[in-house]
Amino acid sequence: MARPIEFFFDFSSPYGYIASHLIDDVAARHDREVEWKPFLLGAVFKIAGTKPLIEVPLKGDYSRKDFSRSARMYNIPFAMPAKFPIATVATARAFYWLAAQDAALARRFARAAYAAYFVQGRDVGDVELVLALGENLGVGRDNLATGLQEPTVKEKLKTVTDEAINERGVFGSPFIFVDGEGFWGSDRLPMIERWIETGGW
Amino acid sequence: MARPIEFFFDFSSPYGYIASHLIDDVAARHDREVEWKPFLLGAVFKIAGTKPLIEVPLKGDYSRKDFSRSARMYNIPFAMPAKFPIATVATARAFYWLAAQDAALARRFARAAYAAYFVQGRDVGDVELVLALGENLGVGRDNLATGLQEPTVKEKLKTVTDEAINERGVFGSPFIFVDGEGFWGSDRLPMIERWIETGGW
Repeated sequence: MARPIEFFFDFSSPYGYIASHLIDDVAARHDREVEWKPFLLGAVFKIAGTKPLIEVPLKGDYSRKDFSRSARMYNIPFAMPAKFPIATVATARAFYWLAAQDAALARRFARAAYAAYFVQGRDVGDVELVLALGENLGVGRDNLATGLQEPTVKEKLKTVTDEAINERGVFGSPFIFVDGEGFWGSDRLPMIERWIETGGW
Repeated sequence: MARPIEFFFDFSSPYGYIASHLIDDVAARHDREVEWKPFLLGAVFKIAGTKPLIEVPLKGDYSRKDFSRSARMYNIPFAMPAKFPIATVATARAFYWLAAQDAALARRFARAAYAAYFVQGRDVGDVELVLALGENLGVGRDNLATGLQEPTVKEKLKTVTDEAINERGVFGSPFIFVDGEGFWGSDRLPMIERWIETGGW
């Protein structure tokens, strides 16, 4: 079995959301698994001295337009949230707490979280919403609340984020690795498929 | 006849260079013309407070790698110039002076200029090289040298650059418009083709 595709994303990232709708199908077409790895993009902005796209003069208007245009191209429901971007620490911690028990469950949570934010416009960084999303998936509210405070969970998110930025050169979301080769952006999925098919060039 | 595709690019832009190899074929497949519109990306950096990609922490290494990876995907010859980026005022002025007389000649000049920079690594912003490239295309050296100083030529480049940034929302190179819809980046060419084929979505 070939190595899993690594899918780094932030829960506040529109292009991450778009990729979340597509990446598993891309992988399945080529007999690959996907390792979902939420991280905190805010840490990148601090290091790189960059800002969220929509706050950059000139780029902002284009980005807002391109988010929904890109989603529409794939028939993915999308509505730009009024509150953007948001801090997604709790969301990502919930993911890793769930993932430690059940990878498929964690992925269902991730999809639900992305839909809550980019379809319903709800602040998915909010702990109460995170707990409610867990409940919808049959996860005990108190269990998850306790899980969010576990040192191993906090450490896991910190480690993934540090590794992404300092060792893997991740500076945006989504950032997708195929056999170690990194690709930035949901619009690179066709290039990624070609890379998988050909073994690279 | 449908409206021409507008191709905004800077002569110092690697992705502009890649698009220059592909855009005419994309257009021809859909019975479109291309209007080549070199502009000065440096003016954007000043307004947007952004920097050339390779100077942004984290993004720099990825960009250098992605330039050549993207070129290789299309079998386009590419070597990252040692001097990068460069000021391309003279190059763009030469283009517009030629374009006022012969659009096809201006396009041949643009291709030659891009090859000189991104294949041979020569500083194509240098006036002497610009004149030499003109000479290779049968353009009298003195005529072109005089042309570069013409107020109308200077004004043309200024107007295109101002219009691109202030009226069209251009903030990178290449920036390609299809029926008024803007797309940023050579990696958007497949999306552009789909847009032309479907009339947009």
